Order: sequence, then structure tokens, then C-alpha cells
Amino acid sequence: MRALVIVAHGSRRDSSNDEVRQLAQRVAATEHDYDHVSCAFLELAQPSIPEGIEQAIAQGAQEVVVMPYFLSAGRHVVSDIPAEVALAADKYQHIEVKIAPYLGASEQMVELVLSQCCF
Amino acid sequence: MRALVIVAHGSRRDSSNDEVRQLAQRVAATEHDYDHVSCAFLELAQPSIPEGIEQAIAQGAQEVVVMPYFLSAGRHVVSDIPAEVALAADKYQHIEVKIAPYLGASEQMVELVLSQCCF
Repeated sequence: MRALVIVAHGSRRDSSNDEVRQLAQRVAATEHDYDHVSCAFLELAQPSIPEGIEQAIAQGAQEVVVMPYFLSAGRHVVSDIPAEVALAADKYQHIEVKIAPYLGASEQMVELVLSQCCF
Repeated sequence: MRALVIVAHGSRRDSSNDEVRQLAQRVAATEHDYDHVSCAFLELAQPSIPEGIEQAIAQGAQEVVVMPYFLSAGRHVVSDIPAEVALAADKYQHIEVKIAPYLGASEQMVELVLSQCCF
């Protein structure tokens, strides 16, 4: 069983965190290769990254892909998220935990930007 | 003449700001309906939003579309960017200045997320 955990920064504004939760629900409702889709937050909101990974494992995941929902490769993407993921990976060594490329690295970002500006 | 100004938050890390500048260059090199594509930053990097809009107008733009390169509708998207845009719009009343929907509002975000996780 494969799980996807979309990781956002987290905000003091509930509405921003809810946007991420709704995105995870929309991803879950789309056709894909994952058995379980959820979200987690680096800070300021729950679940944390280790909690999100643990919840996916509790659902039966044997492989967990963590997707950084970030636009640039700053400290959070380069250091903080890998460190949080490593905590969970060390604890559950029988589970494969991978980190996907961060959102902003997508080749398709150019098209997404333009699609917002066609009016 | 129509100009697109992609507005990011801005970072203390030059590399993050350079990612935005490179994105603007990639957008500029793609087929689209704009005569001029550039980027600007809400804070921590140059040009500022009013500067970015002024530079587009100096290039001959009669219509400027500002695109918030943000993932959630937080304070920056809801209040700060419109306030900065209004400063420029007040100064150049013969120019049409519009704000596009912010990036995270895209219907295509679900596909973009999944495309980063297909491995």
C-alpha cells in the first residue's frame, strides 16, 4: 500500500491550512496510484510531518511519498522537511519513505502560471 | 501592449528570488498573449510591486496583469498585494492594472501535485 503525504508550511490562519486539507481531498478524489492521500504541516498546524507519516503507516502504508507543497527550494525544502522525514524513517525502518520533488520544481509550473492569467 | 508581472513573496535567500526570476524568463519564452513578462516581490527583494508595475509601463504597457505567485489566500494575497497594486494604479490612472487569481487557486493544482509524485 502506497501513501502520499502533501506537506505544506502551515499557517496561523486556519483558512490557509484548510486550503491545503481541501487540496489533499481533491487529490485523493482524483485518479492516481496512491491508496491513501493526506496532508501534514512543517509547523503551526496539525498533523506534523512525523504524525502525518505515522497516520499513513497506521492506515497500512508500506511506502510513503512526502510531497513538499512549496514554491522554492529554501531552507524548509532543503533541510527542515528532510530532517522531519528522517525522524519517521528512522522509527519505521521497514517502511520506505521517499521525498518527491517540491512543487515549484515542476516543469509544468509555466503553464499553470499562464493558465491563471488568460483573461 | 499587455504586461504580466509575476509577484512572489521575496526571500532573504538570493537563490529563492532567482528561482522566481528564472520562472518569469521561462514564462516569457513560452507562447502567450503578453508582450512583456517580469517578476516583482512583496518584500525582501527587488523590484517591489510598484517598481515592477512602473517598469512594465516604461516598456509601453497599457494593461498590466499582476499574478500572485502564492499558494494560499493569506493576508499577503487578500490585503498586501492589492494595496501595493492600488498604489501604482492610483499613480497611473490611464493604465489598466488587474490582479489575476493567485496560483494556489488554480483548478489544475491537483494535476500538478500528482505529476510531481509519479515515480
